[in-house]
Amino acid sequence: MNKMNNIEVIINNKKYTLRGYESEEYLQKVASYINNKNSEFKKQDFYKMLDSEMKSILMEINIADDYFKVREQVREIEQENEEKAKEIFDLKHELVSLTTKLSEAEKTIAALKEELNENQKKIIRLETELGSNKNTKG
Amino acid sequence: MNKMNNIEVIINNKKYTLRGYESEEYLQKVASYINNKNSEFKKQDFYKMLDSEMKSILMEINIADDYFKVREQVREIEQENEEKAKEIFDLKHELVSLTTKLSEAEKTIAALKEELNENQKKIIRLETELGSNKNTKG
Repeated sequence: MNKMNNIEVIINNKKYTLRGYESEEYLQKVASYINNKNSEFKKQDFYKMLDSEMKSILMEINIADDYFKVREQVREIEQENEEKAKEIFDLKHELVSLTTKLSEAEKTIAALKEELNENQKKIIRLETELGSNKNTKG
Repeated sequence: MNKMNNIEVIINNKKYTLRGYESEEYLQKVASYINNKNSEFKKQDFYKMLDSEMKSILMEINIADDYFKVREQVREIEQENEEKAKEIFDLKHELVSLTTKLSEAEKTIAALKEELNENQKKIIRLETELGSNKNTKG
């Protein structure tokens, strides 16, 4: 595992030291995400009227909403994934079936060629016999 | 779209009225998620020592962390999805190639059967000719 880090972040214009296993980069990303939300809220008139507790609750709900929306996204993509897995299964099945048919067709071709070869020999034999008969007759 | 709702939720033992388009069920799920986090925090000694601002920041970071972890999950599943889409593309390509080969093999079989049929007719003709020659000789 990574080692424990002390990382300074600035959230809502105040400095906080966070202690944990996460990387500096990751925690700065989290801080910046929260700061962007704060800036968005501050642009709205109703927000200025709220007390600090209500502001916190609003922020928590807002972040939690992002979280649940992405969780829903996970559910959808996982479903897509399952459908794709099923399609792969079906395609592989079809592929096996086609490969079997092709192999049987190749065997049939080989057998037919063999039969054709035998027939051709027989034709030559018959034609030779016929030729010599004619010669005998002539 | 859904209509605007006023929904009462209880977060950290206080009642809040939320106004928005989300369903009651969804907002209760969000509230319950935040309350569970609060309960977990309250079990830890260090948390009791924090002022309310620090508690809020900690909660915000904690929820944001859940959010970023699920976003990472989305990234991974999307990558899996892309790999599966590529596999489907390749399998379909292989399927088309096999179908073409099978169709060619079937044409070859038909042509060989036709040739065999012609040869068999020729053999019968030759055998008939030979038979009648023998009869003539006999």
